[in-house]
Amino acid sequence: RAAERAETAREIGLLVRDWGRREVRPSVVEREQRAEFPHDLYRQMGELGFFGCCFPESLGGTGAGFRALAAVSENLAWVYPPLSASMNLQAATVPLTIANWGSTAQRERWVPGLIAGELLGCNAMTEPDGGSDFLGAMRTRAVRDGDEYVINGAKMWITNANVADVAIVYAKTDPAAGHKGVSAFVVPTDTPGFEATRVPCRGLGKLMPTTSISLTDVRVPADALLGDEGQGFVVAMNAMDYGRLTVAARSVGLAQACLDAALAYANERTAFGEKIGSFQMVKKQLADMTAEVAAARLMVDVAAARYDEGDLATRESSIAKYYAGEVCNRAAQATAEIFGGAAFMDELPIGLYLNFAKLWQTGEGSANIQAVLIADDALGWKSMDR
Amino acid sequence: RAAERAETAREIGLLVRDWGRREVRPSVVEREQRAEFPHDLYRQMGELGFFGCCFPESLGGTGAGFRALAAVSENLAWVYPPLSASMNLQAATVPLTIANWGSTAQRERWVPGLIAGELLGCNAMTEPDGGSDFLGAMRTRAVRDGDEYVINGAKMWITNANVADVAIVYAKTDPAAGHKGVSAFVVPTDTPGFEATRVPCRGLGKLMPTTSISLTDVRVPADALLGDEGQGFVVAMNAMDYGRLTVAARSVGLAQACLDAALAYANERTAFGEKIGSFQMVKKQLADMTAEVAAARLMVDVAAARYDEGDLATRESSIAKYYAGEVCNRAAQATAEIFGGAAFMDELPIGLYLNFAKLWQTGEGSANIQAVLIADDALGWKSMDR
Amino acid sequence: RAAERAETAREIGLLVRDWGRREVRPSVVEREQRAEFPHDLYRQMGELGFFGCCFPESLGGTGAGFRALAAVSENLAWVYPPLSASMNLQAATVPLTIANWGSTAQRERWVPGLIAGELLGCNAMTEPDGGSDFLGAMRTRAVRDGDEYVINGAKMWITNANVADVAIVYAKTDPAAGHKGVSAFVVPTDTPGFEATRVPCRGLGKLMPTTSISLTDVRVPADALLGDEGQGFVVAMNAMDYGRLTVAARSVGLAQACLDAALAYANERTAFGEKIGSFQMVKKQLADMTAEVAAARLMVDVAAARYDEGDLATRESSIAKYYAGEVCNRAAQATAEIFGGAAFMDELPIGLYLNFAKLWQTGEGSANIQAVLIADDALGWKSMDR
Amino acid sequence: RAAERAETAREIGLLVRDWGRREVRPSVVEREQRAEFPHDLYRQMGELGFFGCCFPESLGGTGAGFRALAAVSENLAWVYPPLSASMNLQAATVPLTIANWGSTAQRERWVPGLIAGELLGCNAMTEPDGGSDFLGAMRTRAVRDGDEYVINGAKMWITNANVADVAIVYAKTDPAAGHKGVSAFVVPTDTPGFEATRVPCRGLGKLMPTTSISLTDVRVPADALLGDEGQGFVVAMNAMDYGRLTVAARSVGLAQACLDAALAYANERTAFGEKIGSFQMVKKQLADMTAEVAAARLMVDVAAARYDEGDLATRESSIAKYYAGEVCNRAAQATAEIFGGAAFMDELPIGLYLNFAKLWQTGEGSANIQAVLIADDALGWKSMDR
Ligand SMILES: Cc1cc2nc3c(=O)[nH]c(=O)nc-3n(C[C@H](O)[C@H](O)[C@H](O)COP(=O)(O)OP(=O)(O)OC[C@H]3O[C@@H](n4cnc5c(N)ncnc54)[C@H](O)[C@@H]3O)c2cc1C
Ligand SMILES: Cc1cc2nc3c(=O)[nH]c(=O)nc-3n(C[C@H](O)[C@H](O)[C@H](O)COP(=O)(O)OP(=O)(O)OC[C@H]3O[C@@H](n4cnc5c(N)ncnc54)[C@H](O)[C@@H]3O)c2cc1C
Ligand SMILES: Cc1cc2nc3c(=O)[nH]c(=O)nc-3n(C[C@H](O)[C@H](O)[C@H](O)COP(=O)(O)OP(=O)(O)OC[C@H]3O[C@@H](n4cnc5c(N)ncnc54)[C@H](O)[C@@H]3O)c2cc1C
Ligand SMILES: Cc1cc2nc3c(=O)[nH]c(=O)nc-3n(C[C@H](O)[C@H](O)[C@H](O)COP(=O)(O)OP(=O)(O)OC[C@H]3O[C@@H](n4cnc5c(N)ncnc54)[C@H](O)[C@@H]3O)c2cc1C
Repeated sequence: RAAERAETAREIGLLVRDWGRREVRPSVVEREQRAEFPHDLYRQMGELGFFGCCFPESLGGTGAGFRALAAVSENLAWVYPPLSASMNLQAATVPLTIANWGSTAQRERWVPGLIAGELLGCNAMTEPDGGSDFLGAMRTRAVRDGDEYVINGAKMWITNANVADVAIVYAKTDPAAGHKGVSAFVVPTDTPGFEATRVPCRGLGKLMPTTSISLTDVRVPADALLGDEGQGFVVAMNAMDYGRLTVAARSVGLAQACLDAALAYANERTAFGEKIGSFQMVKKQLADMTAEVAAARLMVDVAAARYDEGDLATRESSIAKYYAGEVCNRAAQATAEIFGGAAFMDELPIGLYLNFAKLWQTGEGSANIQAVLIADDALGWKSMDR
Repeated sequence: RAAERAETAREIGLLVRDWGRREVRPSVVEREQRAEFPHDLYRQMGELGFFGCCFPESLGGTGAGFRALAAVSENLAWVYPPLSASMNLQAATVPLTIANWGSTAQRERWVPGLIAGELLGCNAMTEPDGGSDFLGAMRTRAVRDGDEYVINGAKMWITNANVADVAIVYAKTDPAAGHKGVSAFVVPTDTPGFEATRVPCRGLGKLMPTTSISLTDVRVPADALLGDEGQGFVVAMNAMDYGRLTVAARSVGLAQACLDAALAYANERTAFGEKIGSFQMVKKQLADMTAEVAAARLMVDVAAARYDEGDLATRESSIAKYYAGEVCNRAAQATAEIFGGAAFMDELPIGLYLNFAKLWQTGEGSANIQAVLIADDALGWKSMDR
Repeated sequence: RAAERAETAREIGLLVRDWGRREVRPSVVEREQRAEFPHDLYRQMGELGFFGCCFPESLGGTGAGFRALAAVSENLAWVYPPLSASMNLQAATVPLTIANWGSTAQRERWVPGLIAGELLGCNAMTEPDGGSDFLGAMRTRAVRDGDEYVINGAKMWITNANVADVAIVYAKTDPAAGHKGVSAFVVPTDTPGFEATRVPCRGLGKLMPTTSISLTDVRVPADALLGDEGQGFVVAMNAMDYGRLTVAARSVGLAQACLDAALAYANERTAFGEKIGSFQMVKKQLADMTAEVAAARLMVDVAAARYDEGDLATRESSIAKYYAGEVCNRAAQATAEIFGGAAFMDELPIGLYLNFAKLWQTGEGSANIQAVLIADDALGWKSMDR
Repeated sequence: RAAERAETAREIGLLVRDWGRREVRPSVVEREQRAEFPHDLYRQMGELGFFGCCFPESLGGTGAGFRALAAVSENLAWVYPPLSASMNLQAATVPLTIANWGSTAQRERWVPGLIAGELLGCNAMTEPDGGSDFLGAMRTRAVRDGDEYVINGAKMWITNANVADVAIVYAKTDPAAGHKGVSAFVVPTDTPGFEATRVPCRGLGKLMPTTSISLTDVRVPADALLGDEGQGFVVAMNAMDYGRLTVAARSVGLAQACLDAALAYANERTAFGEKIGSFQMVKKQLADMTAEVAAARLMVDVAAARYDEGDLATRESSIAKYYAGEVCNRAAQATAEIFGGAAFMDELPIGLYLNFAKLWQTGEGSANIQAVLIADDALGWKSMDR
């Protein structure tokens, strides 16, 4: 069973890579210039089953499991980092949250479309006042009004919100109640009062839009609640558990992309009559990347395997995310050095790699936040097992 | 005398900062959007004497010296990294090479205009086949034809060549003669056959164009030679000595810009009810930057002071460049982490800092090349004193 | 089968730990003062089956496999690093080399006694002129004389040679033949001419003697050859494959010992009214150790599992050794910092940890040597698969 | 004046080095075996004026200043790290505290003898419950009894207390008064009730004894107070200002000793037919050390120069200590790697270097404590200027 899942994961990983090599990599430079959202690629990914790993066939999924999810995430990031944002929005955080906490009606309305790549989702958690302190920074309010909730507030850094059909929105239903005062909602983005504005982020390219959202008297039916009123914090933490796994896997894929690029370049570029891979200073960088990428992948695999066994691998995902984030940044830095001047040209993705490596160290819980969680767990002060 | 030069340097550094705070920083976001070469700023820098530190008044300079050059370089990089490319092109490498090695006619034709910011210069050394191995990668040829030389070949990664009035071009005059077969030329960019094409480099912004140059039967008079025929390698090494100093100083300035940005943000952003500067993990990053930036600045100062004493501080510049390059990258990485998501928005320069930190570690001799030179000198195998 | 081996490994690992907690840790301070070779502990380890993992019952082994070998190695290092030298000398390199390459007579004479802890072995490879360049540095000669070989030369850094009953000695039988001119011999240490002298190494304690060996007309029968004449290089490389695995595992165990010590101390020591584990700078160190130790252990496990499948996991062992060596040094440094002044007192093993971490990065192929092998393999230049 | 002081410092630094090369280095192996306190070397250092830099001639000093103090500290550490503990005990912390805060009688009784190396001093600040939290961990009490104070308590990690003639002892005179409740005393070590017991610290060698002190009804006259009653905290902070400077300088000297040893070995040891300095991985380590040691030395120099100008360079000393501590550990680690197996033999001091590098990162305020101070100062939250 475990071996089978591992094999499925391996296969779908290769599929992603092949697809990416054929359909994506050759066109990214031109796509970045055109600067249009890659609707066609999302559709293709949906059709190829990249998004359905964690869902039963009844919802349009493949049931391939979490190791498969990790494999897709890793390899999509390897193909082209911006594309892999889809993993949280179409394959994990968004549809899983709806599937796990939503009503049957909500589940059927959104999940199959999301994992088919026909509907686009976004996850609106972070606010302008801060992402690490989810609770303390939340100013968005949802007020019950008869059969509806009325949501007001603002969100920041929300990926794909300007193209999304649906958003998961967190808001305070009882500001005085602390952890217990937050609720989660499914909000169609065409609801009046929902406005997403693009935040220009040059270093991240054009294929993964970042937006700010303003929410002005956004009315949703009571049935839009995910979980019960006041359960939003639990819903969010649960969403993060999955999100961290895919970010960790993506960091591994990006680190592997760095390593592969560096190996190819070191094998081809010459200086002083030698391939630059023959210089020990370059070798050292290649050896470090080789070892660390392999180690980070194993960490992700351990976490994914625990999810496949039905456990909530909060600890393992957190460690994998923390570690893979660090490894990925070292890899991106080393690769940029190995490419010399060529690191900076748009024709090559090395500059983009530098930025995404750093981004994923922050997203879904910054390195510092992970370090605190990991240490407190190791000290026996606050177990990550829930 | 030394104290005086140090004081002059301090003052001009402050001047640069003030100017930058007033004239540059408020407009960079808009300038990047407009994407026009900042001719006006170059003119202003020229008028304010930023470019004249290493030149006598007879050539329009201020004679302020190398510590002043370093101070301007550092603070321009602090103001906005792309602007500081001007230091090599208008204040050091290009005009110094013409002043040191050119005929009186060439010197008078170009130097005063360059340091006034009225003429723009570029330095065309690197070729597509490689920058580290200047000699081995050089395919450009210059053939004597009567009173003229005819230059054919290609250059890569040449800053400002598309806007420049004049280029220093290195070419082989005797391909069989190794070190002795290279010559340097002053080439007006309107010479027929000189063609510069922009190389898109998204991560570096729009205010410091990078280009490739093709040279097709470019004819220059014999008097365009800098130094004697065959002396181009020596000219180039000498140019690099100055170039490394300004890159080192710029890395310090950029590291300081990172630190200042991080300190300000850590003082203002809150999470969990505290300014984020109150978290020890953030403090640790701030302390490391504080210590390392100070150390790197001292290294630059030692090198600049030696130049001011009339020595060629090849060793000290190389060490300063190597060390400041490392420090600057660590600072940029740490600052990006401290900014969290905000690191990636175009409104803030943090993403740009990440890229320039890496760029300057490569430019004017990559980190690896410096490490080899420094170690061989320390081992007593190849002195950097010349 | 794989799961079974993993379970066996887990169990024997726990057994080692329990034994160590009971029988070893309480007495090490006193043992270090007495400074006698711990014959009793070697005997106990033999009796408990720690040394027999890679041997069939016919030779006195348990057949538990390489994952079990790794588990014992890891946990012995955790118990007390000097003791774990036994893994190569009693459980892997020495007896495996004899078992794999020796005659039946040699095998029966030595292997059962070694893995029972009744006979002591040593592995005499390194010479004064260098360990990395095994071949180039080898001055020891073995000359065929009738039915015997006569060995002359010197060895350096040989662990346990002063207490050993038997040594594997490498010597050149045909100095002109390069790789093909080396041969390996089993040499009883009571053979006339074999002299081991202790090399004082304060930082490593007294329980793992390091020696230099002089070999003066040491005569062994032709049957002492391991493999054929001229096959010594292959024998040595093969021995290293196993040696690297146990060193990697030991580095993990030592890193875990550092982490456990650090966690316990951070949980108990207070400053400024708080347990020092509550300071984020300490937490960061604990989180890094937690993540890296887990990653390194997985790397070792991957290598060991490949051996258990009958492959020669040269690549995986090399990567595991390289990576675990680095991780272990970082852990030792961090732990020493966390202990503050207490790191330096003989009552605690922290100073010893610092030294063993560094030692194991060098032994069985230095970090640099591994980096070269790993990079050349990754570049596709020299596969580590044999 | 500044130039003169710099020149004096340079000269005395060379003197220290020459003396050490002649009188100390050749005998350290044998001295470590003999394990006797090096009274003769202390006497020689006193006679040569190593200890008198910060004192006027009237007290037996040379008035050479703080840059000279730093130069002696650096070079003594270079000669042999354990010897340089004398800098705080004979040349800075102890005699300066007595000179700055003691009565004329106390000053005349102790200072000339200490800086002559005829009397030995120790500084008893740290207690078993912790060194970082000087105040919170202090259990030692001094109770006024007529014309005397009666001191009871315990100290930990006190260098040279078992051989010292005099100790500076901090104790609480008013436990309820916080910062204001600590007082400092000069205590002759032959006062009844003062008992120093050696704490074995193998890794630090035998020439710098570490002790614990028990204080049982130790009676000193009221005139033994340094400063006023309740001023002990200020006295201690002031003492640390000087102590940090010498520790920073010593870390630089030790890092330089590492670098010099590594350069020499890289120039002499061969592998694969090349000097090991010819391998780029080794070169990289040498280049890093070269750059960082130079940078750290400049930081110390800046701090020392400020002291020479009469300022209290708390900030600069703290930064120098923090930075040099880090640099020194990196250097020691790299050097140990370069020496391979030879790092561990008692004949060479490399193992000792590893330990002292770590020790000095902790002593006189751990790295974490410095990082907090430096960050809070940089953030503008708590100025280090006093
Ligand atoms: C391109 C992009 C896409 C994103 N997409 C989404 C999305 O789709 N949906 C969504 O909800 N969010 C999204 N985010 C937001 C992301 O999750 C947050 O940026 C992240 O959680 C960090 O929050 P922050 O940026 O507000 O940083 P802050 O929380 O302000 O943190 C700033 C710094 O303080 C540190 N810090 C904070 N608290 C502590 C502490 N207790 N101890 C130590 N250090 C601390 C942090 O580590 C960080 O270094 C995105 C962000 C980016 C940049
Ligand atoms: C934005 C930008 C602006 C620039 N502006 C100019 C300009 O105005 N004028 C100009 O002439 N040039 C310019 N350059 C070129 C710059 O100087 C080169 O990029 C630099 O010298 C490195 O050369 P390369 O990119 O060809 O890298 P390569 O020389 O191909 O090096 C590739 C990698 O191999 C490593 N390597 C090479 N040799 C060795 C060795 N012996 N040992 C160990 N490692 C080695 C390098 O360190 C590097 O990591 C610019 C570059 C950029 C990106
Ligand atoms: C306590 C102890 C116990 C030991 N026990 C044993 C034992 O039981 N049996 C045994 O046979 N040996 C033993 N050794 C020896 C150990 O295996 C060697 O120390 C190790 O192989 C390194 O060899 P070396 O010390 O001669 O270093 P060298 O080979 O001299 O290397 C010196 C430095 O040069 C570097 N270097 C060398 N070649 C290259 C290259 N091509 N590229 C880059 N860098 C390079 C190395 O990485 C190292 O940093 C022991 C050593 C110690 C210290
Ligand atoms: C060989 C030796 C000689 C010495 N000589 C002397 C001497 O002559 N006289 C003397 O008075 N003392 C001496 N000392 C003591 C030395 O000054 C202390 O060891 C040092 O101050 C650290 O104190 P500690 O060991 O109690 O560590 P602790 O204070 O217990 O610290 C333990 C760990 O907690 C960390 N920590 C503590 N507080 C914080 C915080 N707020 N934030 C983050 N991290 C924190 C520390 O950085 C450290 O990593 C000596 C020590 C040694 C080992």
